[in-house]
Amino acid sequence: MERYQVILTYDGTNFQGYQRQPDARTVQGVFEAALRALGWQDKSILAAGRTDTGVHASGQVVAFDLQWAHTILDLLRALNDNLPSDVAVREVMLASDDFHPRHAALARRYQYRLFCDPIRDPLREGYAWRIWPRVFQEPLEFALKYLIGSHDFAAFGAPHKPGGSTVREISAASWHMDGSDLLFEVVGNAFLYHMVRRLVFVLVKIGQGELHPEILLDLLNNPEQPRIHGLAPPQGLFLAEVIYPSGGR
Amino acid sequence: MERYQVILTYDGTNFQGYQRQPDARTVQGVFEAALRALGWQDKSILAAGRTDTGVHASGQVVAFDLQWAHTILDLLRALNDNLPSDVAVREVMLASDDFHPRHAALARRYQYRLFCDPIRDPLREGYAWRIWPRVFQEPLEFALKYLIGSHDFAAFGAPHKPGGSTVREISAASWHMDGSDLLFEVVGNAFLYHMVRRLVFVLVKIGQGELHPEILLDLLNNPEQPRIHGLAPPQGLFLAEVIYPSGGR
Repeated sequence: MERYQVILTYDGTNFQGYQRQPDARTVQGVFEAALRALGWQDKSILAAGRTDTGVHASGQVVAFDLQWAHTILDLLRALNDNLPSDVAVREVMLASDDFHPRHAALARRYQYRLFCDPIRDPLREGYAWRIWPRVFQEPLEFALKYLIGSHDFAAFGAPHKPGGSTVREISAASWHMDGSDLLFEVVGNAFLYHMVRRLVFVLVKIGQGELHPEILLDLLNNPEQPRIHGLAPPQGLFLAEVIYPSGGR
Repeated sequence: MERYQVILTYDGTNFQGYQRQPDARTVQGVFEAALRALGWQDKSILAAGRTDTGVHASGQVVAFDLQWAHTILDLLRALNDNLPSDVAVREVMLASDDFHPRHAALARRYQYRLFCDPIRDPLREGYAWRIWPRVFQEPLEFALKYLIGSHDFAAFGAPHKPGGSTVREISAASWHMDGSDLLFEVVGNAFLYHMVRRLVFVLVKIGQGELHPEILLDLLNNPEQPRIHGLAPPQGLFLAEVIYPSGGR
């Protein structure tokens, strides 16, 4: 019996999120079904984090114990043969026996993709948020400096456990152009529930000139304010990477 | 009553092609339903061409006659409000009374997107063909020179009408990189049924080194040969543009 660490890519469109639920199609559910076809009999796999309904991942990390007589590449192929077309294993590694993808993670990297267009675009809106009026780059960039560092993000999300800390540390945040898409990248030690989507919502309002960049500073300095209502839609969000101490274990 | 010319974008994934069929979800079917909600009562709209099941379009052109008391922008919005999320009107123009989007077209531009990867990638395979082994750019580029010009493409597709000509003129063909995707662009006066997908299939075999580039020359010079069996899958193909004499009418 060995513990394996797996990097998963999935299209979240037709999943009710990562976490297994009765009577719902979830990433965890289909992955565990694929593992069972290979003789796995445990109750649950471990994951780096949950993603919501409609959120995509190019770097989700899961782990499980398995008796496997063949090579690691054979395991990757066998899993992909048993998974539906909207989930794929991109990498399989051997992990230490006590590896837990959530506890061992140093940081998570998320991407949020958006584009500015007054008219619907069916070929882009499955993987990006269409916004209008357009955003201006300068206030978007300007607002980022307030994000970096350790802050109480209570205004941006609930902790996963009631009463838990709402302080999180953001180590990097940036905007890139990708063709005519705008790509927001953010790296943090951990994220509150809906935190990235609320951040993107506020950043877009700042970019559109509806809010002043200083609102971000105010929300981070005064976390007792009511939580932000607006939420960027799920289909623009990607869990891009889970970062571990070097060696990946 | 005026004739309108409309540029349509659609995600072909959940359509059984463009052309209306009983009991099947088609682009023409949902577009005509949207028009009917605006008072349109004709039997059929006109289109520049048909696209197959699973093929996408960013520049399909359709035309119809409509009594419309508001602005063209209002018509665009009203249509988009009545269309499902996987089809959108990108442009509406007034056309001359006898405008027919197929007869008036000078040329069509298609794009085919592919990428090289040994492992499935759910976030890319909805809009691209994943191939492995990888293709080499040099033979791909080299093969293109045989394509340009007027040729009998009988080995690459059937004419739309039985017994019709299989001669078509290709005015441009090129490969571009788009990130790590390879994008094939081809412009021709018209295309046979499945012609672009058979061309891409043969080009990929040439790029992978399985076929010699001269096979393309041989197939074009000896059109009485049996038709090629291989077909690149539909989800990589996009009808990108229909080209009209200047003025777009």
